[in-house]
Amino acid sequence: MNPVRPMDEAPQWSNGGCNGSWKVYAHGVSSDILAMMENYRTDDDIFALATPWGESALAVVRTSGPRAVEKSCLMFSRPGALRAVGTAGLVHGFLMDRLTGEKVDEVMASVYREGHGYTGEEAVEFSCHGSLDGIKRILRLCADTGFRPASPGEFTFRAFIHGRMDLTKAEAVQELVSARSSRARVMALDRLGGALFSRIEQFKQQVLTILSGIEVQLDYAEDEIGGDTGFPVGESIATATALENLAASWHAGQLYGSGARVVLAGATNAGKSSLFNLLLKDERAIVSDIHGTTRDYLEVEAEIDGIPVRLYDTAGLRESADTIEGEGMRRTMHLMEQADIIVLVKDGSVEKQSQEEYIHEDDNRLIVVHNKSDLRSKPLELSGLWISVKKGEGISALVEAIALRLRSRVPENGDEALVIESNRQRDGLYAAAQALRRAAAMDASGVPLDIVAAELHAALRSLGELTGEVTSEDVLERIFSGFCVGK
Amino acid sequence: MNPVRPMDEAPQWSNGGCNGSWKVYAHGVSSDILAMMENYRTDDDIFALATPWGESALAVVRTSGPRAVEKSCLMFSRPGALRAVGTAGLVHGFLMDRLTGEKVDEVMASVYREGHGYTGEEAVEFSCHGSLDGIKRILRLCADTGFRPASPGEFTFRAFIHGRMDLTKAEAVQELVSARSSRARVMALDRLGGALFSRIEQFKQQVLTILSGIEVQLDYAEDEIGGDTGFPVGESIATATALENLAASWHAGQLYGSGARVVLAGATNAGKSSLFNLLLKDERAIVSDIHGTTRDYLEVEAEIDGIPVRLYDTAGLRESADTIEGEGMRRTMHLMEQADIIVLVKDGSVEKQSQEEYIHEDDNRLIVVHNKSDLRSKPLELSGLWISVKKGEGISALVEAIALRLRSRVPENGDEALVIESNRQRDGLYAAAQALRRAAAMDASGVPLDIVAAELHAALRSLGELTGEVTSEDVLERIFSGFCVGK
Repeated sequence: MNPVRPMDEAPQWSNGGCNGSWKVYAHGVSSDILAMMENYRTDDDIFALATPWGESALAVVRTSGPRAVEKSCLMFSRPGALRAVGTAGLVHGFLMDRLTGEKVDEVMASVYREGHGYTGEEAVEFSCHGSLDGIKRILRLCADTGFRPASPGEFTFRAFIHGRMDLTKAEAVQELVSARSSRARVMALDRLGGALFSRIEQFKQQVLTILSGIEVQLDYAEDEIGGDTGFPVGESIATATALENLAASWHAGQLYGSGARVVLAGATNAGKSSLFNLLLKDERAIVSDIHGTTRDYLEVEAEIDGIPVRLYDTAGLRESADTIEGEGMRRTMHLMEQADIIVLVKDGSVEKQSQEEYIHEDDNRLIVVHNKSDLRSKPLELSGLWISVKKGEGISALVEAIALRLRSRVPENGDEALVIESNRQRDGLYAAAQALRRAAAMDASGVPLDIVAAELHAALRSLGELTGEVTSEDVLERIFSGFCVGK
Repeated sequence: MNPVRPMDEAPQWSNGGCNGSWKVYAHGVSSDILAMMENYRTDDDIFALATPWGESALAVVRTSGPRAVEKSCLMFSRPGALRAVGTAGLVHGFLMDRLTGEKVDEVMASVYREGHGYTGEEAVEFSCHGSLDGIKRILRLCADTGFRPASPGEFTFRAFIHGRMDLTKAEAVQELVSARSSRARVMALDRLGGALFSRIEQFKQQVLTILSGIEVQLDYAEDEIGGDTGFPVGESIATATALENLAASWHAGQLYGSGARVVLAGATNAGKSSLFNLLLKDERAIVSDIHGTTRDYLEVEAEIDGIPVRLYDTAGLRESADTIEGEGMRRTMHLMEQADIIVLVKDGSVEKQSQEEYIHEDDNRLIVVHNKSDLRSKPLELSGLWISVKKGEGISALVEAIALRLRSRVPENGDEALVIESNRQRDGLYAAAQALRRAAAMDASGVPLDIVAAELHAALRSLGELTGEVTSEDVLERIFSGFCVGK
């Protein structure tokens, strides 16, 4: 055996990141799902590092499971105190390796009894000193004590399984963690609070009302209930429209959640880099201090009027399309292809404005700015914004133009106040809406009511899948595998 | 105002790192120190992010101060529940901006009453969702609510000021957080438990015993107490030796705490990089995944037999000193100058061994290995290790040789089991030992006892400075400014 071991590796089971494959374990979910699942189990006790992997004042290692408290007692210096805690309490003590007698760390243990914590199971969270070696030792101790390393999202998965939250709330947890703007965070918090769940329940009630009206007609002969009241087309279409409006809020959710790419492009010496720095002011230095923020010295994450934006300063493009060559140019072209907004910076002090042949003037992502307005007055024939980076003139107009252009790309979602962020939710809402529209169309074509009713059942199923009331192993796996470990 | 703001910056007051200048605020420490301090205050309430800055399942924002609970109530959805908590308890709720009514995050609050938490003050720790935007919002909320951003080490400083720990324990907190090996962590935990404090108290008793014996002789005439018992030279020297042994443990503390630099050097094609990879096996990939571990693709942190080691693979050196030029070569030379161990890798398959003129063969940091032992048998005249990276032969012997050489650089510290890590503690222990040795030497030279006694008082003062019983603003500032923010 080679006694050299790398020192700072995060143990595999606690990478704190949001990746890796995942096996679904489920328990308590409706029995038809359980039957489909091969490897589910929630009868064991899990653990994970819940804070980022890094040296710091504190780190939190969390555990959960039917015997989490009793197992924690095995590695805690004051098992009696841990057992004596009521529904939720704090206990000071040491994590100990009872085999060697080694004191592993001084910790505060937060104890939650069954039904009182995040997962709904017994849970103990250890707040420990944030030393890398100490965290690794504690994670090893947890594994040695019989806890199983948690998979991504497994704590939230258990909360779902134990009825602590429906699927929309579970998804909101991860959307909250990864929120890239305040607005996205507030929206996610809203969904976590159950706003989306309630709205979907409301839709279900509407569909159920339509459906029960139809089923009465199917169950009894026409004459018995006094005339065929028919299919309620108006209600169906209205509900479908409301569903589509909520689904359309996904665009806003994406804009505020994932953000947009804004690329500064143009010829060299037009003032792109000065504009880039001006937009970020002296805060550029702070941004680049943080790992992961600045992928490249020309790329910075920023927020424009509440919208998270990735701002790119690109290599200057030569002014003839013939000469587009070289790695820098290729990258600029690639960034422009991916961009949501292209700010084309031109040198306004030059009399004759060259044509940028590599950019279509009618590209609706394009915002043209003429820089160096301080050097001469604006020629009448010139369209586009007229700015001076040097004097800081016209900059707020540019920022407003960017925000306006970004927002214009988000379709209206009627009077829907709720905003969704997940593709799954968007697709489920559209599927329910389509089923309702199909039902209305069928009825108009004289299709018998029992076949029309099947579409309403399909709509109900789509809505049930959104909250997890009806679900499949695949869907669960797709949702929770995108989570952080420890969440 | 420019509405573009960088998004991912960690607020300045919560960089989670261990840097920045710091103003000392003290309160409750002995009055002569207070008089020296200009800007001390511990009468306000502080806050900091205690977990690393990064997206994760959980983050912890901690607060402390005389009115920490009452201030927390101002931004908490269930102030009544927060106030009702006993000495230490958990409360679920929402952080709220009461001005705007905005729900900021769902949190668990850990509440500590005065005298029951880390600092000895009232304290509330908020365990929140680890979204970057959310953390920033919470920190802003704390500032808006009247909490002050904590300086590095300020929580531990307050624990010291309020008598929750002496200086040796306070220093152990940071040594524990930054421990780079299990042994360093265990040693720091030992000091945090008070082992060093007790040992220093023991030394103080020994010096006090010697001193009181002398002072009796100073207070009374010779005849009154029946003969001059003189200066207890034996006890003084024994105590000085014990102090020196404890001080010498600093070398081991440094070795296990800060670690050592091991540089692989030698000509190109000798097999340095293959050896580097072999030493790290396939775990190299894991190591390089973690930010901060691998400063350069040729530098990796590893552990050799419990000793944290920074292992360097260097650019190959040309075999003549005349040609030492170019940036790669310069860096290699620089690394070799800084190295604790230089592993000089030679190509053992070559008949004529070249002289490495840029390395002194008698450099006691040098370990010479001849690689490619699989290609021929070891020539009799060859000194150094004979290995085959290709076949993995001789590698454990090399690792043992490195560990042995590193340990041989640590001087013996007698039967002293305790290990210290801080330069301050080493210097203080040596100062006390020197005072005792000076006292013994003075007595041997016939210096009057009252002057000898002054040296014993100096020894006591040095020991008192170690625990913080006697201290100065400068010393406090130096100690705590090296801490993490949030600790």
